[in-house]
Amino acid sequence: MGDDRRSVLVVGASAAGLRCACRLARLKPDWTTRVIEAREVFSFAACGLPYVLSGDIGEPASLRRTDYGAIRDSDYFSRVKGVEVLVGRRAVALDVARRRLTVGGPDGAEDLPWDDLVLATGARPLRLTGQADHPRVVSFHVWEDVEPLTRALASGEIERVAVVGAGLVGCELAEAFRSLWGAEVVVIEAAETPLPRVLDPDLGACVARHLRDNDVRLLLDSPVERIRADDDRVSLTAGGETVESQVVVVAIGVEPAVELGRDAGLELGPGGAIVVDSRMATSVPHVWAAGDCATVQHAVTGDRDYMPLGSLANRQGRTLANVLAGRSDAFPPVAGAVAVKVFDRNVAATGCTKSSALDRGLTAQSARVTTLDRPHYWPEAKEIHLELVYEIPSCRVLGVQAVGEGEVAKRVDVATQLIARGATLNDFAHVEQAYAPPYAPAIEPLALAAMVAENQVEGVESVSPREGWGEHAVLDVRSPDEVETRPVDADRLIRIPLEELRERLGELDDSVEWVICERGTRSAEAVRLLLRHGLRARYLGGGLHWRGATGNGADTRRVGRVRQS
Amino acid sequence: MGDDRRSVLVVGASAAGLRCACRLARLKPDWTTRVIEAREVFSFAACGLPYVLSGDIGEPASLRRTDYGAIRDSDYFSRVKGVEVLVGRRAVALDVARRRLTVGGPDGAEDLPWDDLVLATGARPLRLTGQADHPRVVSFHVWEDVEPLTRALASGEIERVAVVGAGLVGCELAEAFRSLWGAEVVVIEAAETPLPRVLDPDLGACVARHLRDNDVRLLLDSPVERIRADDDRVSLTAGGETVESQVVVVAIGVEPAVELGRDAGLELGPGGAIVVDSRMATSVPHVWAAGDCATVQHAVTGDRDYMPLGSLANRQGRTLANVLAGRSDAFPPVAGAVAVKVFDRNVAATGCTKSSALDRGLTAQSARVTTLDRPHYWPEAKEIHLELVYEIPSCRVLGVQAVGEGEVAKRVDVATQLIARGATLNDFAHVEQAYAPPYAPAIEPLALAAMVAENQVEGVESVSPREGWGEHAVLDVRSPDEVETRPVDADRLIRIPLEELRERLGELDDSVEWVICERGTRSAEAVRLLLRHGLRARYLGGGLHWRGATGNGADTRRVGRVRQS
Repeated sequence: MGDDRRSVLVVGASAAGLRCACRLARLKPDWTTRVIEAREVFSFAACGLPYVLSGDIGEPASLRRTDYGAIRDSDYFSRVKGVEVLVGRRAVALDVARRRLTVGGPDGAEDLPWDDLVLATGARPLRLTGQADHPRVVSFHVWEDVEPLTRALASGEIERVAVVGAGLVGCELAEAFRSLWGAEVVVIEAAETPLPRVLDPDLGACVARHLRDNDVRLLLDSPVERIRADDDRVSLTAGGETVESQVVVVAIGVEPAVELGRDAGLELGPGGAIVVDSRMATSVPHVWAAGDCATVQHAVTGDRDYMPLGSLANRQGRTLANVLAGRSDAFPPVAGAVAVKVFDRNVAATGCTKSSALDRGLTAQSARVTTLDRPHYWPEAKEIHLELVYEIPSCRVLGVQAVGEGEVAKRVDVATQLIARGATLNDFAHVEQAYAPPYAPAIEPLALAAMVAENQVEGVESVSPREGWGEHAVLDVRSPDEVETRPVDADRLIRIPLEELRERLGELDDSVEWVICERGTRSAEAVRLLLRHGLRARYLGGGLHWRGATGNGADTRRVGRVRQS
Repeated sequence: MGDDRRSVLVVGASAAGLRCACRLARLKPDWTTRVIEAREVFSFAACGLPYVLSGDIGEPASLRRTDYGAIRDSDYFSRVKGVEVLVGRRAVALDVARRRLTVGGPDGAEDLPWDDLVLATGARPLRLTGQADHPRVVSFHVWEDVEPLTRALASGEIERVAVVGAGLVGCELAEAFRSLWGAEVVVIEAAETPLPRVLDPDLGACVARHLRDNDVRLLLDSPVERIRADDDRVSLTAGGETVESQVVVVAIGVEPAVELGRDAGLELGPGGAIVVDSRMATSVPHVWAAGDCATVQHAVTGDRDYMPLGSLANRQGRTLANVLAGRSDAFPPVAGAVAVKVFDRNVAATGCTKSSALDRGLTAQSARVTTLDRPHYWPEAKEIHLELVYEIPSCRVLGVQAVGEGEVAKRVDVATQLIARGATLNDFAHVEQAYAPPYAPAIEPLALAAMVAENQVEGVESVSPREGWGEHAVLDVRSPDEVETRPVDADRLIRIPLEELRERLGELDDSVEWVICERGTRSAEAVRLLLRHGLRARYLGGGLHWRGATGNGADTRRVGRVRQS
């Protein structure tokens, strides 16, 4: 790119665009770096918007401020960062041959020249098929979406809300509407369980149960069939059921805003996003893209992918500034780590789910563990359920997902580093951690999950915590106290505490199919003992705790037992 | 090792020894696996002991229990794990040529044969030079150390305690004695700041300040010179001062217990520990070692090292079982991640400190950041101070250490994975994380620290937050509100808010030496502006917040200014 004085034009004052512009202004103060932005309010922390609605964040303006309180408006960028942000200007046409951008603004259209053009046009909410514009059918994506909803909720005008989509935003909104406003909330989701792109069904079911425990009505497996908005209410039909509400929030994801690039002939990729390489270069020389309008490379599959995540946008902007300034930098592949709080449950995931891995043609298997986030003797230890997805026979780890009252984001952040570097189950079993009782158990949950997976590869297999007992003969290896405290309702039950199992193996015949305990550890150990004695059985993955967290077996009863010890 | 039936003898029922024995009994149920243990109480969570003393853990026995309540005694290991633990037997002599271990027990000595011998003899507390045996000069290492102290504290017999050593255990004990028992506590440390092997002085000073804020008396830079124990008190002289107390706890670290191996001719390495390779093999065939008596390989230096950490012992035991069973496994190099809670401060570190890196002949530099553990607009966001140590000119990251009210263990766990894989500042700047406001800020603190380090490499340099103002001319770029709220006491002060700096650069001459702001971000930006205009200045690393946390500038006053804006 040389060190001549270049003119760089950035379209979109989003995380990616601004970060790129500010860094470039720093690295190349003699260049001209300008940003075009259609909207008046920009550079706000979009991920904080649901928490304004929920009341967690008292002052919405704090989303626009720096940590020392300065409002990030065009004056701030000009004075502090030396970057000119032209607000109220809409980019309408891009001429890549003549290197001109046509921009519409309050004073009419003008053609702006550039040496390098950065597309940071972001994403916009997806709409339902046939979704008409109506004030009662809204999205929740930008600054301006918050105030009308808050006002209507505060005035009591809205008491019943339907949220379409149980993704990250849908779950955050469900909590916001219930917690602060006490609104009746129905969440409608086409998939079998909430957060379908983040969690496999065994963990998704835990989130479903927790939403329901918090009085959120969930319609799962229910694609929206019809939506009719009137002056005072919206009628929505999904999965054969009709839901009436005063407002419908459509939160089914986003799509990249790429019209400008598409019309200029840029190559588009997965999700319709602008294809970029690791230097953020598009298919057209001197046109670059970053943020929610551009593709990334998936760390697990190596394929191009679309992952509109705020924390990536920021780093992409920085990478692009480095590249434009002639420095050596490259945006690395992305595992897709995400986290979301759903009422009192922490949810985090990285890499592929088992379903998405199978969809991508990988031979995937998964292991489940229920464990504590700190040593069991630590008074504040809390439970987590963790699912580790791995490839067979390579034993490469493809993804990790976790749900619990306990700490899960840390485990997912650690897993992200390992997955991005092609780590195997053995690498996970050897994961090093800072261990002290206030922070972690002696055996890191990620290592535990890897060991469970290794055992599974060797034949110690588990069944899903969502399975019903059916006709299966079930061996319960818990202590009598535990059996008393948490009875199970299987029809064919055999009870032998693990302590007695070695000496009482002779009492068992090959009818035993499942082994159960509280968290899955002892039942797995029992299965190993049984296998050694020629008895094939599987254990309940994640134990009765995970099963209970899915709502399966929530109403236990004490009936029919095959044999009582 | 073949698949003939072998006899494996494990010396020491510690984390490493028991893990090895239990796994081996599982992988090779037909082999004879026995464990020799001198003490009656074993397999307890030693890292939990300080929290029994502090009252955080109400029932000491929980440290010996499984998560479902079973006591881990020899009966448990025999019935559940199929492992025989011979308690009350002391290994007295090892004959590696004849493969015999002489064991003393209640019924006299006997010779036990073995095919493979595992030394898991652990470590014992270091003693002060010339430290005599006396009931008032104690260590805090095993189960039996807790009860006498607790009893004496509860009866009021002990009201004043001296702790020698401000390491991990010393800091935990200081809190325990103060918080639950309200005892007067003096901590005596030979180094300049607490936790000298974990933290460089800039962060160590934060811990010192916090200990003092919690009424712990600290004698730093004070090696113990003399100790005299009487019937009712101990008189200890350190750093020229004499401290009287009713009990002295010596917590200056541990040394490996290696007599058995040493006498049998095993090679010893750093810290006097038994040298093992990544398969846990010692220098003598068929003799193995794991846990606190053995060496590890340091992930940063590649050298043999001694790191007695509970979480490693566990994994080493598992690795050794795999190796003995003929599986392919290897214990990877260790970065040395640790964490400790000191009253309301979380402390964690991994890799080398700058001091230890320099001691090891590495060309080390460090960067400091003060930041928040979650977005600044999140109501529960808390501050952390983080120091990142890197090598020049390679930019390889050597270590990370952090102290704060906010979350630090996660950052250190993530850093550990990266450091163990030779990551550079650029890799850290690109670290991927699960971002959501309840869990993390949009820019991960580790990435921020890496960017600060990159800027430093490019000439944007900082000064230590422990430095006094001296005669330096100081440019304060904070807003007038901030200046009002947190006045500084430098004699030569110039005030220009960052927002005005670009247009007022002309007011400055080359006398400006330091630039300051609240957390270091703006002052670093200001330094870059100054450098571009030919003015050489450095900024206060970590800002006034870090400086205040070290106790430096705690009593601010408003005096003499060079110029007032």
